[in-house]
Amino acid sequence: MIDSLYAPSLALLTDLYQLTMGFGYWRNRIHERRAVFHLFFRQCPFGGDYAIAAGLETALKWLHDFQVEAEDVAYLRTLCGNDGKPLFSEGFLEALAGMHLELNVDAIREGSIVFAHQPLMRIEGPLWHCQWVETALLNLINFQTLIATKAARVCAAAQGDRVLEFGLRRAQGIDGALSASRASFIGGCHATSNVMAGRIFGIPVAGTHAHSWVMSFDDEKTAFDAYASALPNNCVFLVDTYDTIQGVDHAIEIGHRLRSRGHEMIGIRLDSGDLADLSIRARQRLDQQGFPDALIVASNDLDEHEIKKLKQKHATIAVWGVGTNLVTARDQPALGGVYKLGAIQDDQNQWQPRIKLSELPIKTSTPGIQQVRRYWNDNQMVGDVVYSELLGQPDDGRVELFGDRNGVVTVSNWDRSEDLLQPVMRDGKIVTELPSLTEIQQHANSQKQAWAKASNYPIGLDPKLAEQKRDLIAACN
Amino acid sequence: MIDSLYAPSLALLTDLYQLTMGFGYWRNRIHERRAVFHLFFRQCPFGGDYAIAAGLETALKWLHDFQVEAEDVAYLRTLCGNDGKPLFSEGFLEALAGMHLELNVDAIREGSIVFAHQPLMRIEGPLWHCQWVETALLNLINFQTLIATKAARVCAAAQGDRVLEFGLRRAQGIDGALSASRASFIGGCHATSNVMAGRIFGIPVAGTHAHSWVMSFDDEKTAFDAYASALPNNCVFLVDTYDTIQGVDHAIEIGHRLRSRGHEMIGIRLDSGDLADLSIRARQRLDQQGFPDALIVASNDLDEHEIKKLKQKHATIAVWGVGTNLVTARDQPALGGVYKLGAIQDDQNQWQPRIKLSELPIKTSTPGIQQVRRYWNDNQMVGDVVYSELLGQPDDGRVELFGDRNGVVTVSNWDRSEDLLQPVMRDGKIVTELPSLTEIQQHANSQKQAWAKASNYPIGLDPKLAEQKRDLIAACN
Repeated sequence: MIDSLYAPSLALLTDLYQLTMGFGYWRNRIHERRAVFHLFFRQCPFGGDYAIAAGLETALKWLHDFQVEAEDVAYLRTLCGNDGKPLFSEGFLEALAGMHLELNVDAIREGSIVFAHQPLMRIEGPLWHCQWVETALLNLINFQTLIATKAARVCAAAQGDRVLEFGLRRAQGIDGALSASRASFIGGCHATSNVMAGRIFGIPVAGTHAHSWVMSFDDEKTAFDAYASALPNNCVFLVDTYDTIQGVDHAIEIGHRLRSRGHEMIGIRLDSGDLADLSIRARQRLDQQGFPDALIVASNDLDEHEIKKLKQKHATIAVWGVGTNLVTARDQPALGGVYKLGAIQDDQNQWQPRIKLSELPIKTSTPGIQQVRRYWNDNQMVGDVVYSELLGQPDDGRVELFGDRNGVVTVSNWDRSEDLLQPVMRDGKIVTELPSLTEIQQHANSQKQAWAKASNYPIGLDPKLAEQKRDLIAACN
Repeated sequence: MIDSLYAPSLALLTDLYQLTMGFGYWRNRIHERRAVFHLFFRQCPFGGDYAIAAGLETALKWLHDFQVEAEDVAYLRTLCGNDGKPLFSEGFLEALAGMHLELNVDAIREGSIVFAHQPLMRIEGPLWHCQWVETALLNLINFQTLIATKAARVCAAAQGDRVLEFGLRRAQGIDGALSASRASFIGGCHATSNVMAGRIFGIPVAGTHAHSWVMSFDDEKTAFDAYASALPNNCVFLVDTYDTIQGVDHAIEIGHRLRSRGHEMIGIRLDSGDLADLSIRARQRLDQQGFPDALIVASNDLDEHEIKKLKQKHATIAVWGVGTNLVTARDQPALGGVYKLGAIQDDQNQWQPRIKLSELPIKTSTPGIQQVRRYWNDNQMVGDVVYSELLGQPDDGRVELFGDRNGVVTVSNWDRSEDLLQPVMRDGKIVTELPSLTEIQQHANSQKQAWAKASNYPIGLDPKLAEQKRDLIAACN
């Protein structure tokens, strides 16, 4: 996405404090000290049990294309402190020119089911490089993970029906729309209305006509007929511009005319009113009039909750058009992902684990160079443990539970395990084959099935790591 | 923004149905028929009384740069209908290649106070061009207007204190962040953390250091001292990595050291805990220790409601860092702007007013070629009326009120009036001088003052237009 949409340099897509810190590290000659940061979130969005990781490819491309341009440096030279003098020294600005990232990145595959307090990405490299990239990585991973998760919830509510993402017009900016289309597809949506997302990402596109089509003609039937003449192979008639049931009858009439010319009406779309009632009445009419295969598409402020309600009311909707509530994740429009230092090398190049304390225990970070091990039994996920590579392999299957749930449990029923963080970048170069978006969606689908039967899923820390964390907290107090 | 960020063609940033309708119009040989669409919203966001119009410059640049490329046409050629045959004819695809927009646009100036049911933009031109641009215009105007309005609310709550926008890391994508930085500045924010927004838009940037700076050193005091040595003219110490009040004492100690070297600490930042209590205690310590001018900056899930609460608790916070809740407009992450056909020319090139009915009267659109007249008394806004140029000038000061409030009132106390929709594009060319972002912010500030004293502000339709709307509704039923 980035290479096709943006100018070469997005290096300055960061918070100023990353650069002032970078300058501070440089001035204190610790900028090349190696550090490890982890990107994770503290709570699954929407009150749910899991999230779908997304945005990795976009993030990797951003990292790969990172390049500080002469114009970037010229801009940074203009910034001043409270004495009116330059913020950055010329020596530092010279060091920036031509700088490229020397980072090693391990990440969980896009489309994977992930949980709170697990690193989705682990960034290792020179301290100032790790610091610089924090903001963009959070931006890219937070949003796509949020929307992929939302889409998974919407698709689950639709119980296998087709879900179309229609959100471009009310998305948060151009990229808010494009990234959302990408993430929605990962989460399970079947198509998007966004033609650019179709061109860029290869997502199937869908759409027929709006109210304005009907209003551009003298009456609705004339409008449907004109549409059918022009696009006989793409007829989903929007029936609610004037009177919905009358609109259904007009669609049926034009559907017959279309059939007599060798084409089949795809269906009708409802965009207002009582969707359950209208869909049931429309279904009856369509069935009675010889259109049992015509699909009823519905839209209008839908989300997973509305879809569930409509299903309960026996709505005969076969295709769900979901827009604003999906692409803005209306009930929770941000994932609170964070990026925390886990370890840093000392003067002797020895790794020192680090934590950030908080009055809220849940906000105290986990130290170390972390890895996530997932245990499997046949095709079911049966437990996840975060361990620190500084402390060696985890105790097999032993998990000190996170958060509300206390205590140590042992996952005993596993037959294989995998480490979720896999190398994706070494010294700034992408070292993994990037899967297609369809493959990512398929992976997400298989993960949802692997998770579907999990209950009381154990998630937590390797007990050795939990102990180290407690020791470090005690040492700070 | 667009020219610096995106590749030349964003023409496909639209819903597929705009293109299928465009093809339908073309097939029916009505694509060149002239039409007028209006972009408006039906309800002010956040339960407020007004919105701040924003996004016009971005929208104009999108319109101006619009260009269908060969690759776009090649992509559209691949799309198929339900019979597996191409959706678009070769003739249409040939017509697209090289197409440029021939639109006339009138718009309300960015930074203006606007209300529900008023056109922010009026698009006149060939039907298929008007239709194509709907989605992108909505995307660009909806989001920036939403965020400018949110920022105005946050800044009002801050009562003149500085407000910094910190949202990049949790914004909805790259452009969700950049557009939000732009709109936040229009709405009244003083600076952004987003360096790229600083470079592109000239918005002042702010930032010092994060928790990870402190964690990269053996202890907090060492970290502050190292920062002060490196960036003596940019010292805002983040004091809550370990114990907040101890952090304040460390900042004071380093502040003295800084002063002895001829520099002044700017202040401290609180990012967690009870911000009211901590700010009061920090203020006392700073004052007692010789730093009465040191600013207390606060951040942590702030929005206008939190700021109000903190003000009520006598928090001594001088600078407010607002992130996620501002740039995602968390409590209402989308503005429901719409784009409706108001009039279309018939075979004799005569304008025919059009409405879209709805079971909800508030969703029935207003017909005509609309203009917004604003009445002023001295420097105060005293009333707005939407009239149709097809029906001639409005009855001076007479307003048939919108929505809940019924009846006709007369604005009598006005001494001048202005028409808010002004020409900004003719035949696809920008015909207005684009103000700087600072000028737009100043305009927004003066509008807020002009509105501040308004109560029971009359907003509605010219009675002639209201009558025409009723007649058209009756004719449909």
